[in-house]
Amino acid sequence: MYRINENYLKLPGSYLFSTIGKKVAAFSEEHPQASIIRLGIGDVTQPIVPAIIEALHHAVDEMGCAKTFHGYAPDQGYEFLRKAIAENDFQARGCDISPDEVFVSDGAKCDSGNIQEIFASDLKIAVCDPVYPVYVDTNVMAGRTGTYDAKTETWSDVIYMPCTEATGFVPELPKETPDLIYLCFPNNPTGAVLTKDQLQRWVDYANSRGAVIIYDAAYEAYITEENVPHTIFQCEGARTCAIELRSFSKNAGFTGLRLGATIIPKDLKCGETMLHSLWARRHGTKYNGAPYIVQRAGEAVYSDTAKVQLKEQIAYYQKNAQTIYNGLKDAGYSVSGGVNSPYIWLKTPDKMTSWEFFDFLLENANVVGTPGSGFGPSGEGYFRLTAFGTYENTLEAVERIKRI
Amino acid sequence: MYRINENYLKLPGSYLFSTIGKKVAAFSEEHPQASIIRLGIGDVTQPIVPAIIEALHHAVDEMGCAKTFHGYAPDQGYEFLRKAIAENDFQARGCDISPDEVFVSDGAKCDSGNIQEIFASDLKIAVCDPVYPVYVDTNVMAGRTGTYDAKTETWSDVIYMPCTEATGFVPELPKETPDLIYLCFPNNPTGAVLTKDQLQRWVDYANSRGAVIIYDAAYEAYITEENVPHTIFQCEGARTCAIELRSFSKNAGFTGLRLGATIIPKDLKCGETMLHSLWARRHGTKYNGAPYIVQRAGEAVYSDTAKVQLKEQIAYYQKNAQTIYNGLKDAGYSVSGGVNSPYIWLKTPDKMTSWEFFDFLLENANVVGTPGSGFGPSGEGYFRLTAFGTYENTLEAVERIKRI
Repeated sequence: MYRINENYLKLPGSYLFSTIGKKVAAFSEEHPQASIIRLGIGDVTQPIVPAIIEALHHAVDEMGCAKTFHGYAPDQGYEFLRKAIAENDFQARGCDISPDEVFVSDGAKCDSGNIQEIFASDLKIAVCDPVYPVYVDTNVMAGRTGTYDAKTETWSDVIYMPCTEATGFVPELPKETPDLIYLCFPNNPTGAVLTKDQLQRWVDYANSRGAVIIYDAAYEAYITEENVPHTIFQCEGARTCAIELRSFSKNAGFTGLRLGATIIPKDLKCGETMLHSLWARRHGTKYNGAPYIVQRAGEAVYSDTAKVQLKEQIAYYQKNAQTIYNGLKDAGYSVSGGVNSPYIWLKTPDKMTSWEFFDFLLENANVVGTPGSGFGPSGEGYFRLTAFGTYENTLEAVERIKRI
Repeated sequence: MYRINENYLKLPGSYLFSTIGKKVAAFSEEHPQASIIRLGIGDVTQPIVPAIIEALHHAVDEMGCAKTFHGYAPDQGYEFLRKAIAENDFQARGCDISPDEVFVSDGAKCDSGNIQEIFASDLKIAVCDPVYPVYVDTNVMAGRTGTYDAKTETWSDVIYMPCTEATGFVPELPKETPDLIYLCFPNNPTGAVLTKDQLQRWVDYANSRGAVIIYDAAYEAYITEENVPHTIFQCEGARTCAIELRSFSKNAGFTGLRLGATIIPKDLKCGETMLHSLWARRHGTKYNGAPYIVQRAGEAVYSDTAKVQLKEQIAYYQKNAQTIYNGLKDAGYSVSGGVNSPYIWLKTPDKMTSWEFFDFLLENANVVGTPGSGFGPSGEGYFRLTAFGTYENTLEAVERIKRI
């Protein structure tokens, strides 16, 4: 008689955004006249820019013609895309990353969930608190997190690194030594960043302790300040301790096109074994490449025309971020994030819990945000708003929040 | 100090098709003038049909316009596609499968590799021998297969079900009871099929033993005979013991577009837990949906116009299969498969091993096929050719083989 993976049953409740979706749907049914503005889930709203649409049409035509048809993609992704990523995102910034160290995938969410598979099942992970739930949940599924304490909402075998007002929303080096360290900067959900020096400390720490940093750089396009690194490979020594996850979702609006990349330097070794080889084996065995047409769209992201169009698109969302940040500040809220990030992190007023504020905002302003507590215990009392709505909706949402 | 997943190191050699690729590349470099015909990997060569290209262009245009832009897809896939699959592939055949039981994915390879995750890590799997390597390799990675015996090329904890001339290339019920049974019919690599009665025996067996059948139906579009089921859900009782994997690669040429679906009936339960819920949780946590434009292309597969165009495309490959089958038979080879399948399975002549015949064919006919032994020990002495080349190449390959 077969049995299931019991670790799945340990997962408390459902995935955060499913819960929000259900709550909003229920409210919407009760109040069909309410005009709800969604600044909750981090999904973009602006269309794919013309230069990329053109590349997509061209690739579709290729697929319709025997001479230019493309079947299975190379396991690791097409050379043209890996080269564009290596050159533009790394070499142009002085980072020594070769196309061969780039693995193309269907998105950073998948990669951030799957990467733990190549590690031993009894390793200790460290995560920021609050944190993007996928890092923890996928380790729960793999049986790496011990037992869940419903009262503290923590796992016995996970090292939590609180990121609160008290720490300036950045993690401090943990007392207990972890094996895998998940870092995401600019941060989801807080919008906080690490300076180059701060990130260098983490790289040095990982190298000295024999830990691996899984660095999620999904939001790097939103960095506006000089001293904030765009990739962990800007730090000395990162090639021996870091894996970086890249996304096309937030810099080019690919949430519905699905494209990401994982960078594993060949210097990252456990004894004689390159983690690069393990991930290559996983890609070759469990994955069959991102669609050709989407990889061509990814290549187009780096064309001169698209770069101009995307700069404008990101500026649009950055303006939204400023609008929320300044609007809430004016209204007396305690606000952070937003400067190098599409996320604004605010303290709930009147000691409301995160979910109380969620309900309060939904009912009184018809605005949907994300409860900070959904990202971990240290997120309690905080709330996330995103800059990915339309400008009109963002402005309207801020006005409504100011009024209540 | 972190450690790796040691199970990865147990995997013998590299993925079969990577090895073939390297051998062909080396030969090609030594003989730059050789015109190599590839009937090895199961990749299609005909372009995407016009009706689907049109749907792709339309969806690309939608992505370029704010009003019709699509961001993150629903976890389980768009309703329009799940409905089309449920109606056309199941309900039209009298099978009770609802859209809610369909999970859209980026391909059957990924699903066939990932599905084992929702099961306990110490289950016993049964596979046909020869077999599509992904079923076994992904269980090796999960630590479910025991130790490898390089001499017999088998894993100590895997139940092998030989499918040879002696068994008519179909598996017999195993002596030891497995927990998970992988079945793929029409079969990759042998091209053999199970009749409805034969498959019903497996369903009854699984239900009586508390086993789950992972049924890979990737090649069902090639079935020409009446008594061969197109889905396991044509068998009574399959809803309580079977998961079915569907692919768009071979019926619609989506190898480079990437689309698949996994069917998990809500009646399939381990105690009180629906496997449907576990897979839904996995999808929600580790996956972010197939691209919108590709899901629209999948929907178009079921339009009346595309159905006519695809029937013609499949007929084209079927003619190739007949050409290989008849040609090799005429040349005195012992051949099977090909009738309900794009794969032709032949016995190597003169007691050559599979790899000896691979080299022999590459060197003397410049034709690339797949060594049967790459699919498992019982594949030794056999060889796979595929019908996915162009008709001209297929004809030429058969002529060359006849000559040597």
